[in-house]
Amino acid sequence: MDENKFGQLKKYLTDYIAVNDEMFSIFCSKFKFKTLQRNEVLLKAGDICSYMYFVKSGCLRIFMLDAEGKEATRFLVFENKFGTAFPSFTLQEPSMAFIQSLETSEVLYISYRDFQQLLDSFPGWEKVYRINLEKDYIDSIKRIEGLITVDAKDRYQLLLSENQMLIKRLPSKIVADYLGISQETLSRLKSKK
Amino acid sequence: MDENKFGQLKKYLTDYIAVNDEMFSIFCSKFKFKTLQRNEVLLKAGDICSYMYFVKSGCLRIFMLDAEGKEATRFLVFENKFGTAFPSFTLQEPSMAFIQSLETSEVLYISYRDFQQLLDSFPGWEKVYRINLEKDYIDSIKRIEGLITVDAKDRYQLLLSENQMLIKRLPSKIVADYLGISQETLSRLKSKK
Repeated sequence: MDENKFGQLKKYLTDYIAVNDEMFSIFCSKFKFKTLQRNEVLLKAGDICSYMYFVKSGCLRIFMLDAEGKEATRFLVFENKFGTAFPSFTLQEPSMAFIQSLETSEVLYISYRDFQQLLDSFPGWEKVYRINLEKDYIDSIKRIEGLITVDAKDRYQLLLSENQMLIKRLPSKIVADYLGISQETLSRLKSKK
Repeated sequence: MDENKFGQLKKYLTDYIAVNDEMFSIFCSKFKFKTLQRNEVLLKAGDICSYMYFVKSGCLRIFMLDAEGKEATRFLVFENKFGTAFPSFTLQEPSMAFIQSLETSEVLYISYRDFQQLLDSFPGWEKVYRINLEKDYIDSIKRIEGLITVDAKDRYQLLLSENQMLIKRLPSKIVADYLGISQETLSRLKSKK
């Protein structure tokens, strides 16, 4: 067992369930490791997403292109989180979204088939996955709340209070796009506070 | 076992897992039944949501008030689905949203504590819940996609193709509000097609 490679994944599990070394070896054997280049595209819209990714370092961006070909950021996945083009991965149907590595990133990834097999057979994994799914679903609900009720300024303040790292770490273009506002509006908001 | 009262809930389970009568009786014993009036409010923003609802007939609406006090519909829950003010119920914290019965509705409802207990102890329930959580999460992702990339006309067409019942059954005010467009825009889109 390579502690360096799988240590974060072990913590992800043991935050919720007890896992002995033998069991954890079985769990890890389903994952492969990959280093991604900055801006590397992992999935194109139209393709079926075959993998779930666990981000060890760096950041993945799930984004779409609107009718005018403008990028719209749907989700950002930072270290110690699982992420993928969720509808495509879960339903095994063509993706509406792209997956891109925004920074030099290190990921562990697992195939759809192995992921389902772990859910069926690895004790406690369904619970860990379910609890994190609840968190992701809550994040997406908050995203919807922001989009339907809150104006640009409040959306920026909300992000500042809930996810300051995102604003500090990512290019203005991506932050503006995530908030659904122009870069000009964003820099005006940034300079104000 | 009252087949009339719990038949739909049984189907909800047996679509995914095998359940014998004795086990199902234990499952049902956690639920209570209620008839809701049209427009009855089940939860107010600021309160902690104590219940998960299974809609037997009718429709629940989860909505918020924006800065100007205008209603913004977050989700609609029709028959044979579970629904609640999800972040508040799951985190047991004050709700940002209201829950309202849009029609005369019949629901089965279960407390947070009993719901967690079923997840821990009822064989297969975590799987059934997880699979439906994936579906709800995918719906919310599609909602976000619609909000960030698609213009009013395309959003209406998307809803027409994916959830025509919603447009047919609900007042224009609610449909417009769900789509994030004005009632005037909606009636223009409706008359065009």
